[in-house]
Amino acid sequence: MKQATPLRGRGRTVALLTDFGTRDPYAGIMKGVMLGIAPGARLVDITHHIPPQDIRAAAYSLLVTHPHFPADTVFCCVVDPGVGSARHAVAVELTTENGGRQHIVCPDNGLLTPLLPKVTSAVLLDDPRYHLPNPSATFHGRDIFAPAAAHLAAGVPMHDLGTTAKPSSLVRLDWPAPTRTPEGWRAIVLHIDHFGNLITSLPGGMLPPPRDSWRFEVAGRQLDGLGRTFTDAAPGQPVAYVGSSGLLEVALRQGNAQQAWQVERGSEVVATRLSRRT
Amino acid sequence: MKQATPLRGRGRTVALLTDFGTRDPYAGIMKGVMLGIAPGARLVDITHHIPPQDIRAAAYSLLVTHPHFPADTVFCCVVDPGVGSARHAVAVELTTENGGRQHIVCPDNGLLTPLLPKVTSAVLLDDPRYHLPNPSATFHGRDIFAPAAAHLAAGVPMHDLGTTAKPSSLVRLDWPAPTRTPEGWRAIVLHIDHFGNLITSLPGGMLPPPRDSWRFEVAGRQLDGLGRTFTDAAPGQPVAYVGSSGLLEVALRQGNAQQAWQVERGSEVVATRLSRRT
Amino acid sequence: MKQATPLRGRGRTVALLTDFGTRDPYAGIMKGVMLGIAPGARLVDITHHIPPQDIRAAAYSLLVTHPHFPADTVFCCVVDPGVGSARHAVAVELTTENGGRQHIVCPDNGLLTPLLPKVTSAVLLDDPRYHLPNPSATFHGRDIFAPAAAHLAAGVPMHDLGTTAKPSSLVRLDWPAPTRTPEGWRAIVLHIDHFGNLITSLPGGMLPPPRDSWRFEVAGRQLDGLGRTFTDAAPGQPVAYVGSSGLLEVALRQGNAQQAWQVERGSEVVATRLSRRT
Repeated sequence: MKQATPLRGRGRTVALLTDFGTRDPYAGIMKGVMLGIAPGARLVDITHHIPPQDIRAAAYSLLVTHPHFPADTVFCCVVDPGVGSARHAVAVELTTENGGRQHIVCPDNGLLTPLLPKVTSAVLLDDPRYHLPNPSATFHGRDIFAPAAAHLAAGVPMHDLGTTAKPSSLVRLDWPAPTRTPEGWRAIVLHIDHFGNLITSLPGGMLPPPRDSWRFEVAGRQLDGLGRTFTDAAPGQPVAYVGSSGLLEVALRQGNAQQAWQVERGSEVVATRLSRRT
Repeated sequence: MKQATPLRGRGRTVALLTDFGTRDPYAGIMKGVMLGIAPGARLVDITHHIPPQDIRAAAYSLLVTHPHFPADTVFCCVVDPGVGSARHAVAVELTTENGGRQHIVCPDNGLLTPLLPKVTSAVLLDDPRYHLPNPSATFHGRDIFAPAAAHLAAGVPMHDLGTTAKPSSLVRLDWPAPTRTPEGWRAIVLHIDHFGNLITSLPGGMLPPPRDSWRFEVAGRQLDGLGRTFTDAAPGQPVAYVGSSGLLEVALRQGNAQQAWQVERGSEVVATRLSRRT
Repeated sequence: MKQATPLRGRGRTVALLTDFGTRDPYAGIMKGVMLGIAPGARLVDITHHIPPQDIRAAAYSLLVTHPHFPADTVFCCVVDPGVGSARHAVAVELTTENGGRQHIVCPDNGLLTPLLPKVTSAVLLDDPRYHLPNPSATFHGRDIFAPAAAHLAAGVPMHDLGTTAKPSSLVRLDWPAPTRTPEGWRAIVLHIDHFGNLITSLPGGMLPPPRDSWRFEVAGRQLDGLGRTFTDAAPGQPVAYVGSSGLLEVALRQGNAQQAWQVERGSEVVATRLSRRT
């Protein structure tokens, strides 16, 4: 690890997003490593409960979380089934809507897919001066990603961390956009939250008013009309609404739609514009 | 959100208590929002694992936790099944036993019930200058409660956040007090912790000595005598004792009473004073 | 609690490791207590999900985590099935490899066993000036351990906290070292992580090259050769490798070895050096 330690004591936020869980010591170890490098950093847990090795879930969480963090946040995201293989470790810079410049460190395995349009520059984390000494082949969260995030938080310029890479060269997952149908849209369930609410891939902006002109189908159920919030349905009844991330969601009021309907991520969602009654 | 940002950089503690879980990005998003408004605030998780939409469990947790936090803590409590409905969002000021003045922001849905005797003033969070712009109808944790808590932590006076309300107008849940019987008390199981220990609604102060004069019944089991701690019972045996919150508890030493006895929250607990043997 | 509060405002890290879970208010209460005593301390969660009352799991987690924390960290470790009994509460000082001096506060129940060789001094936490007033018999995490950790973080010398004790007098668990066999080593599964990877008690240094000279047996399965990382196996296939803590591990690539093989902690692991083929 580089000896000339930069600007210790700065209060930049490092936000952690991993699949390490909270039972094992892995997340705690990463925090210890970061505090050793950047004692002034503020460490914030987004989640350590991404389903193990589920890159797509990590990508969704980062996508909807990052815009709400301060303009200079460093995100340290480790969902890394390919650890120790030839996959790259990377850091990228994002331009946010308010003109901020956030950084993300993560494995180059597709985790950045939905954020790629905002990525303005990238580096491979290949300078061993910014790794822990003798990095392991199985825990790059500790040996490469935590040190990189902490060095960024402590003021090291991103391009010091390794070789410049083209954002266009980063790995992309298939990330399905909604498709048009003659009567509306076909989309998928992108995420299911712990309340059992179904978050779809269909942006609310694709559902122009009037609200009662839309019919939705998911998991063999049909819902008429776009509501505004949970309490627009009676207890136990389903409601479709544009959720807090700007995407169409379907929920059971005071219930759990996933459990009641046995829906899975990736299930099809169909939005149909009903013809005006004459 | 109000532009003239007050006193950034203060280190007031904001303690979070929600039912958002730690799998989803919701809790992390709230933290990001708060750090943007109050960069100097200290964020502390009490829990994000209140059972979904369980207002009563949130009220219990807040009740037993708040006295142990510093005198100027802001609590941000979001268990909010009525989000987007007509329920109010509120902030209240509490006077603590040591003369401190803590603040709580939460939905006005009964979550404050057991704390109402300590509430000295209240406001409705109805000034949109202290909301995020264009608040959603489904995530007031992000759009209303986190900003309010952060503004309080950054030094905004509580009464700037909205319209003054009477503490007596706040929503109350039915919160059962123990009732006297000819031979003692009738109470309920108020909370069951993750060790399976049963925390009852009966204050230890209602069980005067001698300890061996009391008999307890819960879930069809009978326990004689009030112990002092777990190790007053043999391994696998039950023990009644006054717990760390000052309430009667029943536990199985090195076991899980809830699982062994299939007890539920709300189960009846009877305390009987045995007549002196002659 | 002692009134003359020492050196408030210092930024020493307090790392928490408990079995209190995150559903109940216990961990949050400990944090509130610590912030009241040491407002400048930095609180970091290692885990609150040690299996209830599992001292051995806590010892493992602390062993592999502490070397990655800064040199002056205070660890507050509460897995305490004997709370309220005659077991002692202790604080110890450790000398770390880089010359740092970390502190640990914990019950004297064996939790320190694998760290005892590094312990240079110890005290019993028996000075009530550093307890909360009127300590309970069931929650020493709140009443004794959190205050002790916070006072250390705030600058109180460890020996002020109570009576000096000999490190050699601390309780030791049976902590099995690997045993030699004519052809290699016999060890055990020491920990199973939430990915289902099996961490054994056999240090990688006991497995000299060549890598393909070693055969491993665990749970009735046989693996030939020591790999380097997960991706040295095909998806769904097992691999043995030296993990990030320097111990032999066995995993299923993109799978869960514990679930697939129904292994338990304590299961036997045999490493055999194959004779050179002629």
